[in-house]
Amino acid sequence: MKRVKVSNNVIRRLPRYLRKLDELSEHGVSRISSFDLGQQLGLTPSQIRQDFSCFGEFGQQGYGYNVAALRSHIASILGMDRDFQAVLIGVGNIGRALMDNFCFSEWGFRLLSAFDINPALIGTEFKGVPIRSMDELDGFLAENHVDMAVLAVPKDAAIPVTERLTANGISAIWNFTNVELTEPSSDMLVENIHFSDSLLSLSYYIAERNDEEAARAAREGRKL
Amino acid sequence: MKRVKVSNNVIRRLPRYLRKLDELSEHGVSRISSFDLGQQLGLTPSQIRQDFSCFGEFGQQGYGYNVAALRSHIASILGMDRDFQAVLIGVGNIGRALMDNFCFSEWGFRLLSAFDINPALIGTEFKGVPIRSMDELDGFLAENHVDMAVLAVPKDAAIPVTERLTANGISAIWNFTNVELTEPSSDMLVENIHFSDSLLSLSYYIAERNDEEAARAAREGRKL
Repeated sequence: MKRVKVSNNVIRRLPRYLRKLDELSEHGVSRISSFDLGQQLGLTPSQIRQDFSCFGEFGQQGYGYNVAALRSHIASILGMDRDFQAVLIGVGNIGRALMDNFCFSEWGFRLLSAFDINPALIGTEFKGVPIRSMDELDGFLAENHVDMAVLAVPKDAAIPVTERLTANGISAIWNFTNVELTEPSSDMLVENIHFSDSLLSLSYYIAERNDEEAARAAREGRKL
Repeated sequence: MKRVKVSNNVIRRLPRYLRKLDELSEHGVSRISSFDLGQQLGLTPSQIRQDFSCFGEFGQQGYGYNVAALRSHIASILGMDRDFQAVLIGVGNIGRALMDNFCFSEWGFRLLSAFDINPALIGTEFKGVPIRSMDELDGFLAENHVDMAVLAVPKDAAIPVTERLTANGISAIWNFTNVELTEPSSDMLVENIHFSDSLLSLSYYIAERNDEEAARAAREGRKL
């Protein structure tokens, strides 16, 4: 596939489109206009057409989008058909939650193995994924093609483990540690799940709404 | 505080600034220029000055920013000083991971109580937070001021629980269910943690890099 550099904002909307298209499929919808799709996502039809135009021609003027075809096109853009292979480092609450509830294969990733330092876990399997000792990590990475590591270790281990992954040729990390793993100039692809960033954005909007309500109340001369 | 409408992109950068400033404090840095701050965050100095200018005057020309003062200003913008109160619905792996590892109070939220349907959990405490039965939810919300609910229930329960929260006056949800909870027109503030969206963005960038490397190899007439 020929690729042009697409803005990060567009890329981050693609998974949302994908989820919505899956939902439409489930409800038996096979065709949708950019207008209706936009309404359901809180986007304008022109924004949607513009997003998709980054990746070639998708819909047909006046006929809307074929839901299944659009879904498969977006999935391919997102690399979901590439059978990426991943390992999970750290089987604490978060690691376990991912192994238990998160369907990696649904999103095009194969979870080959998990790694931990807890002797009670090492040698066991969880939902078909073997849990190995951290001592086996380097050997495993030498013998298997691994596209990405999920990092779910305690804070203190985040940087040392990242250095070890880097030294073993890993160049993409899905980071759950809330630690900035690398310098901005690094070649490592890092995607952060920062729970606190998400919560603080919500906090901002709650505060904003409270302020607006207080201001409205003040203007109307009433007390909250 | 007087508020102007600030773009969502700026708001989403604020928690990143906050984390960086905390890190600088820990390392004993008390003053930093927009140039150095930008370098550490992969942003231009002018972008940083522009972001902060949305909220009034922060730095002093030629002197840079006072790290502690800037940190406290941003924390206040984010509503971290408002003592928001929260409840957690669902004490599965994710709920437990949050109760176990996520320090709500550090981010200005007080977690009053968790709720679940599992009889083995009901009546117990986890890190000082009581776990109550879902049957007690409505009564609890009537008697306590709750600014936000953390939703960590199974998929099927997401919409019914959201409707129940709405009916009980909750107007902000931190959503871990990977279900779109509301229509875009809804008054409910919803902040989603979509693990899959995050993973798929990473997948896109891995695929893009692989394609670039393949294209480079092809130009150079070598095989990967």
